Amino acid sequence: MIKRDDMTFPAGEYERRLNDLRMRIAERHLDAVVISDPANIMYLTDYQTTGYSFFQALVVPLEKEPFMITRALEESNVIARTWVDLTRPYPDTGDAMQMLVDALREFGLANKRIGYERNSYFFPAYHQDVIHTTLKHGKLLDCFGIVEEGRICKSAVEIELMKKAAFATEAGMAAGIDACRVGATENEVGAAISDAMFRAGGEPPAVMPYVTSGPRTMIGHATWEGRVMQDNEHAFLEVGGCYRRYHTAMMRTVILGEMGDSMYRAQQTMKHALREVHSILQPGMTVSDVDNLVRNIISDNDIGARLITRSGYSIGIAFPPSWDEGYMLSLKQGQSTILREGMT
Amino acid sequence: MIKRDDMTFPAGEYERRLNDLRMRIAERHLDAVVISDPANIMYLTDYQTTGYSFFQALVVPLEKEPFMITRALEESNVIARTWVDLTRPYPDTGDAMQMLVDALREFGLANKRIGYERNSYFFPAYHQDVIHTTLKHGKLLDCFGIVEEGRICKSAVEIELMKKAAFATEAGMAAGIDACRVGATENEVGAAISDAMFRAGGEPPAVMPYVTSGPRTMIGHATWEGRVMQDNEHAFLEVGGCYRRYHTAMMRTVILGEMGDSMYRAQQTMKHALREVHSILQPGMTVSDVDNLVRNIISDNDIGARLITRSGYSIGIAFPPSWDEGYMLSLKQGQSTILREGMT
Repeated sequence: MIKRDDMTFPAGEYERRLNDLRMRIAERHLDAVVISDPANIMYLTDYQTTGYSFFQALVVPLEKEPFMITRALEESNVIARTWVDLTRPYPDTGDAMQMLVDALREFGLANKRIGYERNSYFFPAYHQDVIHTTLKHGKLLDCFGIVEEGRICKSAVEIELMKKAAFATEAGMAAGIDACRVGATENEVGAAISDAMFRAGGEPPAVMPYVTSGPRTMIGHATWEGRVMQDNEHAFLEVGGCYRRYHTAMMRTVILGEMGDSMYRAQQTMKHALREVHSILQPGMTVSDVDNLVRNIISDNDIGARLITRSGYSIGIAFPPSWDEGYMLSLKQGQSTILREGMT
Repeated sequence: MIKRDDMTFPAGEYERRLNDLRMRIAERHLDAVVISDPANIMYLTDYQTTGYSFFQALVVPLEKEPFMITRALEESNVIARTWVDLTRPYPDTGDAMQMLVDALREFGLANKRIGYERNSYFFPAYHQDVIHTTLKHGKLLDCFGIVEEGRICKSAVEIELMKKAAFATEAGMAAGIDACRVGATENEVGAAISDAMFRAGGEPPAVMPYVTSGPRTMIGHATWEGRVMQDNEHAFLEVGGCYRRYHTAMMRTVILGEMGDSMYRAQQTMKHALREVHSILQPGMTVSDVDNLVRNIISDNDIGARLITRSGYSIGIAFPPSWDEGYMLSLKQGQSTILREGMT
């Protein structure tokens, strides 16, 4: 572990994360884990790149020094950002899986019990097929979620850092609300949000802002596509600000004209729901109880509004295409997951 | 197939794409294909969303009507954007694979030969495991690349549309070059590029611009992180503009001060390489011959510059986290793929 003082967090934070992971590796009777999820790699090492459509992995042995497999172009990120001392890059004309297997051999792990994140988006099936047929003397075991167990509750320094993401989020949202007016295009509003959140210290978020207007506000996950905002319409804005890959997000509806009665009642319902969540939410509750609370308030309306999704999700480190940690924790029915301190 | 005139391309373009796909389905002796790659789904139907970390698929039977499986929230995108008439959405508390298998049953495909994109990032292993154990009477066969065969050569209307992406790219780059000056932060340059490309009609690209300065220009795929640009440094800008998910990209280096001798020689080398590519590149050449041409010119320098990556890649429809179609076509050694008309 290289000692350095220019990482996102103090060295102690990364040591704690790595030690906790190693305890889980030991509990599962593994000798090493191959971590391929970009957010998990960043959590452990501070490594980041947009280039994770090329295979990359951090291998953490139970005791020996961790090492990284990356595309040659990305090795610079290991050197510039992380405490990782050992890298085994592969060229664009080379083979990532061969490099991974060679490195496992080099570091005495080829005949050991190796955990891998089977459900990781960026360890696609062809690569998994190849490693299963190549690593003949080792045992490959699924350890999906082993890093997420550490990520799900944020430490004090993480929550402090997330305030910088929130600062960018709020700056973007304020500029977006300001830019919404009759005759403006959705693009102009998207431009204003982007400009403001990046000037406020924000970095490119895992998902760019959502800006829709009029009938387009009913399209799920749509954003600006050139439409001109009209009188008496409403616009939908959702902004996720990012700082060092940590995210926070907020949504707002902007009314262009007078607020109608049904919109007013919808607003009051949402304010009531948010107030209730703020006052009742606490560690120890299950995600389904929280979802129930929100769902009951929102469903109790006579304006035809429905909540067709989960009512919330965890948020933290994220890389495109998604800013949420919903696969770790979502507020929804049918789950007994318990809220704990440090969850965000 | 619903007839509508508000799609990105005229109906005939989608009919051609679907007919060509069905010819390939027949050639492979399949009865249907499950298309899960977001760019492939968009290519065939004009469907788009950022929400593809939830499973979604377009099922194209050889003869009968195609249908879509989406998260309930995303069904609005099928209705608002596509010619697809049949949707089978699943709720956030439901199971995507169960919905897929149920729909295959409903449409008489559960005991047929079904192609699926085994290597698709967004058909992760757990889902593949479940469908393999659930669809007991059908035969699942890999058809990865079956849609890409159609995408790799762009039609005249696609190339025309890509000019709008290029317009946004150029507007962003011009604003970025303009914003680079001693004392500016990388963030301010990123903000200027974003603002300009979105106002020029650009939509959120698959990858946000790269802006680095000074020593950070040596970090692969890094972008703004607050650094202040210094006198006599250079800044690296790479901008990918997007319109209706089609992308074009460009790179520029900005010198803050006087251009040194080695930078001048590097510039002349790159100009020479680009001129040669423009004059020599033509259909019929292999990707390795083109790569060789570029690589030889760039390698012939005495300033220590190296090309450590492939020398180029295909570009077109893209969703985060990558704007390139490099897995379909890259300019690199060791491949005999032939360049054809319409490739971009």
